[in-house]
Amino acid sequence: MSFYEQLKFDSNGLIPAIIQEQKTGRVLMMAWMNRASLEKTISSGKTHFWSRSRQKYWMKGESSGHTQQVKNVSFDCDGDVLLIQVEQIGAACHEGYQSCFFRTVQADGVGYEVTEAQLQTPEQIYGSKK
Amino acid sequence: MSFYEQLKFDSNGLIPAIIQEQKTGRVLMMAWMNRASLEKTISSGKTHFWSRSRQKYWMKGESSGHTQQVKNVSFDCDGDVLLIQVEQIGAACHEGYQSCFFRTVQADGVGYEVTEAQLQTPEQIYGSKK
Repeated sequence: MSFYEQLKFDSNGLIPAIIQEQKTGRVLMMAWMNRASLEKTISSGKTHFWSRSRQKYWMKGESSGHTQQVKNVSFDCDGDVLLIQVEQIGAACHEGYQSCFFRTVQADGVGYEVTEAQLQTPEQIYGSKK
Repeated sequence: MSFYEQLKFDSNGLIPAIIQEQKTGRVLMMAWMNRASLEKTISSGKTHFWSRSRQKYWMKGESSGHTQQVKNVSFDCDGDVLLIQVEQIGAACHEGYQSCFFRTVQADGVGYEVTEAQLQTPEQIYGSKK
């Protein structure tokens, strides 16, 4: 049976995909896929998403070179979330951090701090000020 | 500055929360929070969510006893996804698996298989057939 039959895309035809670095277990990012971008992800071995703000397909790393090689695809009990393990080239975050989750809530439960080093600035990645 | 000011809840007032086992790096589940359930999660130290299907608050483990002790809360660059690291008591999945992501797509890119052991049946967890 095809695993696609187990999936439930939302009313916009989308499903969230959690991207995890296979080697370290680090959660890198979450983005949205539709069926076509999931198929492309699996056939090409590189992650492809659907941008809700820009209403277009994008391949992770298409501008930055920071692609994600797919190692493993799993899905949850309700069939409405994907977990994709990857090998990450460079920084996953467009702000130049290894993971998009670079800010952590402090012990007071209100404040926050940056908890990882910025590997590159966006200007270094994309070549101009955004 | 409060980290809440960095968050973007969606048009339904919700934000997805990825739940990761801190000790192992295992991604356990993803569920949705509104601001009140996030505040409750932080103040109580146990994960609380908003059920979109039942339109009510729920604490993870309220029926099963399989609670999640919060160890760390981070949020992504766009402020629209949470990553919460926890200590998981028992199985995270209501189907009795350690993680909700217990099914993995096979090498053909279509088929899938169960890739982890079921720790308990739902009947063992909830006491009656669901």
